[in-house]
Amino acid sequence: MRNKIIAEKLSKNLKEISVAEFFEKNRHLLGYENTTKAMLTVVKELVDNSLDACEEAGILPNINVSVKQTGENKYIIKVEDNGPGIVEEKLPFAFGKLLYGSKFHRLRQSRGIQGIGVSGAILYSQLTSGKPARITSSTGKRYINTIDLMIDVTRNEPHVISSKREKNPEKWHGIKVEMEIEGRYIEKGQSILEYLKQTAIMNPYARIVFNGPNGKVTFSRVVQDLPKLSKEIKPHPYGVELGILRRMLKETRAKNILSFLKSDFSRVGKTSALQMCKLARISPKRKPHSLDHNEITRLHKAMQTVKLISPPTDCLSQIGEETIIKGLKKEIEAEHFIAITRPPSVYKGRPFAVEVGLAYGGKLNPNKQVDLLRFANKVPLMYHQGDCAITKAVKEVDWRRYGLQQPSNSLPIGPLVILVHFASVWVPFTSEGKQAIASYPDIIKEIKLALQDAGRKLKKYISRKRRSHEIQMRKNLFERYIPEAAAAISKISDVPKEKIIEGLEKILKKGLKEIDIEEGENSNEKETKNGS
Amino acid sequence: MRNKIIAEKLSKNLKEISVAEFFEKNRHLLGYENTTKAMLTVVKELVDNSLDACEEAGILPNINVSVKQTGENKYIIKVEDNGPGIVEEKLPFAFGKLLYGSKFHRLRQSRGIQGIGVSGAILYSQLTSGKPARITSSTGKRYINTIDLMIDVTRNEPHVISSKREKNPEKWHGIKVEMEIEGRYIEKGQSILEYLKQTAIMNPYARIVFNGPNGKVTFSRVVQDLPKLSKEIKPHPYGVELGILRRMLKETRAKNILSFLKSDFSRVGKTSALQMCKLARISPKRKPHSLDHNEITRLHKAMQTVKLISPPTDCLSQIGEETIIKGLKKEIEAEHFIAITRPPSVYKGRPFAVEVGLAYGGKLNPNKQVDLLRFANKVPLMYHQGDCAITKAVKEVDWRRYGLQQPSNSLPIGPLVILVHFASVWVPFTSEGKQAIASYPDIIKEIKLALQDAGRKLKKYISRKRRSHEIQMRKNLFERYIPEAAAAISKISDVPKEKIIEGLEKILKKGLKEIDIEEGENSNEKETKNGS
Repeated sequence: MRNKIIAEKLSKNLKEISVAEFFEKNRHLLGYENTTKAMLTVVKELVDNSLDACEEAGILPNINVSVKQTGENKYIIKVEDNGPGIVEEKLPFAFGKLLYGSKFHRLRQSRGIQGIGVSGAILYSQLTSGKPARITSSTGKRYINTIDLMIDVTRNEPHVISSKREKNPEKWHGIKVEMEIEGRYIEKGQSILEYLKQTAIMNPYARIVFNGPNGKVTFSRVVQDLPKLSKEIKPHPYGVELGILRRMLKETRAKNILSFLKSDFSRVGKTSALQMCKLARISPKRKPHSLDHNEITRLHKAMQTVKLISPPTDCLSQIGEETIIKGLKKEIEAEHFIAITRPPSVYKGRPFAVEVGLAYGGKLNPNKQVDLLRFANKVPLMYHQGDCAITKAVKEVDWRRYGLQQPSNSLPIGPLVILVHFASVWVPFTSEGKQAIASYPDIIKEIKLALQDAGRKLKKYISRKRRSHEIQMRKNLFERYIPEAAAAISKISDVPKEKIIEGLEKILKKGLKEIDIEEGENSNEKETKNGS
Repeated sequence: MRNKIIAEKLSKNLKEISVAEFFEKNRHLLGYENTTKAMLTVVKELVDNSLDACEEAGILPNINVSVKQTGENKYIIKVEDNGPGIVEEKLPFAFGKLLYGSKFHRLRQSRGIQGIGVSGAILYSQLTSGKPARITSSTGKRYINTIDLMIDVTRNEPHVISSKREKNPEKWHGIKVEMEIEGRYIEKGQSILEYLKQTAIMNPYARIVFNGPNGKVTFSRVVQDLPKLSKEIKPHPYGVELGILRRMLKETRAKNILSFLKSDFSRVGKTSALQMCKLARISPKRKPHSLDHNEITRLHKAMQTVKLISPPTDCLSQIGEETIIKGLKKEIEAEHFIAITRPPSVYKGRPFAVEVGLAYGGKLNPNKQVDLLRFANKVPLMYHQGDCAITKAVKEVDWRRYGLQQPSNSLPIGPLVILVHFASVWVPFTSEGKQAIASYPDIIKEIKLALQDAGRKLKKYISRKRRSHEIQMRKNLFERYIPEAAAAISKISDVPKEKIIEGLEKILKKGLKEIDIEEGENSNEKETKNGS
């Protein structure tokens, strides 16, 4: 009897926990564990959202970021974009409810996915300032809407404190978010400035103006075209798990299994759909929701067995080699730039692509560890470098082969910036704070291949540079002897000394050029043999 | 106009994401990123829950774990406990809804907190097996309830497939969970066996029987008393943030600010409450929900300013030095055991305590890195060792001072097992998978102090052992000469040789003992000076 009473007492306390409560208490999971990081996270969530919105609407992004100190550890953060805006009815939900968004249920590359980021920032703001956030939005029509918004934490619902509508004579469109937070402003290392700089490198088609406590910094637009817009795709049969298939069968609008397979998956035509049905011993005419557990299990197995081509990759939006180089050149003073965009690859049925950029030499310090810039879907990853698949891949590549020093199990040493961009319809982040990519072997392998491609190009440049340095030395030596030699030849041949000098210099120049070309080709050949 | 259409199109897709969907897609956050880890996670979530339930009900835990292979990568996992059970009405929710539990809203030490663990395991099971989980429960009264349960992922609600009631003539109470999963069974390293072994070390009052694919292993009970039950406490004013205070003011049942401060916080008496009101320039008679933003801000500041004693620490349930040593002795063959339980400390208003155990020498390998066993609220942490505050603290301690080798920035080398237990009302895990503790400076500092306490004891043992080894060597040398010396003395003195030998041996023994004691005291003094 006593036990029953205990059980009842314990069971009585069982109740629902709201997502907002969960992340309020666990806010370090979202990147709010200290005031420096929290401030960066707020800016990052807002800017990432703005870039996504502009790109989806086909608008070249103009983004204004402002950080203003209002008290000890108190700051007002403002971010404004020229995106499409959000319609009035949805505005409170898009900002005032966690796990609410448009990007979670689709397979397509975008910066945000989870529907947590911006509302997480507002949650942090109200926790530390006790004040609502102000959001202004217009879709470019008659009105501009402004709301003062808090989150009802125990219910995870938006709570609009006040709202107003104003005329919009200039047809402004976009979103402006303003909130007060507890923060700490720094300009070195993992800072807002560094985040914006890296964002500018990866998104050189955006114009970003930053008004910080120490003045104004403008990251100008150097590319005039938006990258190709990514398309939404359907799931590929190879990446679908049993439980998901079960749910898809229950929720599909298709009338029979044949059309379900054809319409709800990518890369399944009539032939392969019929093959799957045959393998699973299920009539193609069966109603999708009529399958029992054993039939679903057989169908699932058959779907993994039938040979299919890889999923389409237009769901990805890579930056491209040219843009990577433009982005790097814009922000990094180096002498040589290399970019590699690998063809898309697939893990667990999900397409992804890796891009690598290198900036070498120039003003970069030759005696320290290389700088590693990590990006996922065009967003800089600023924290948890040690825990990230990109870092692991960079460490696993043998950079000594490409002319750099490298202590064992470390990043290489040299005057080099390595940029790695991981683009995918689904990025497996190690936490909701989205600062590191989980170490799936397929992902690490593909990043390494891209790094090796770039490394071979780097080697070519480094050995050519070394060679041309040697040649220059030799040339300098020859040149010193030319006048003497010319004088001697002139005496014997009666040709004027000046003519002979001219002739010798021509020969010297031509000879060096030939050597240079030969060297280049040779090293090129060698590298291809070493490669992959 | 075009923009308005785009905005409407984009806004139309904005919708709610269920927590279950979120974690199904992000299941690596819960520890399900590969089949080996997933299997361990399922067992861990179930066993942790069982231990919590037994302890809360004051029952010495008997837990049966079984893992049975049913096909390629397919396993059935069963965990049964003798806990209090869960009442019939709440059963589906406790297992079939994420973010549902009894431990989130209270301040008190327990293994589970989030209300995600067990339902996460069921989510993984249905995703990979397509089948429901079976849960049997009784509170020891007339009936035993059994339900077959799935989770409606898009709504995050339990979906009971079938249920039955049976008579309970033997008044059995407890919970039995059975589910099929995709998994991979291993016995080395980060395995179920290792997890159970570490659990047995930390919870030696539990009896755990494991029926695995390779036979039966029993971890027997060596301590007959449960640890002191932790109590629930109220939040301490120093740990309350502005946003939380705002919500507490809105939700309190107290009729005025004075009684709000006294009844809703720990360590606030009438005097300090009145002091706070005075500092904040708020009448103690004001209604809590009537405060405006500025008043709340002032009150919050005042609450941080008034001097208060630290929160009560009976919310913690440490294991204690004696139990730690019993637990270590039970599972580790070493020659010397040390345990330290530090007095509780506070970070952000939350009490926590650190305990350290050391097992040294014996069969432990002297030439490899020490084994580090990490625990949070009595639960072994099996993954993400590199990312954990405990690991950082162990590396930061200078172990060479205590007689071990230690490469820079690494774990020490030697025949040593280091156990660290972090006990708190709130463990800041680095992810929902609960495998590493976030690196708050206050936490790292306190762990280091505990390690240094234990390290000094270890040093004493090691130097005494070294000393007694030297003395033994000296003694052996002397002993070899005793017969010769005795023969010579016997010749001169006419005393029988045997008597002289006896006498010399006595002197030798006594002398060695004295040296030993002296050495011990000396080294003790030295250590105290070095310490903290």
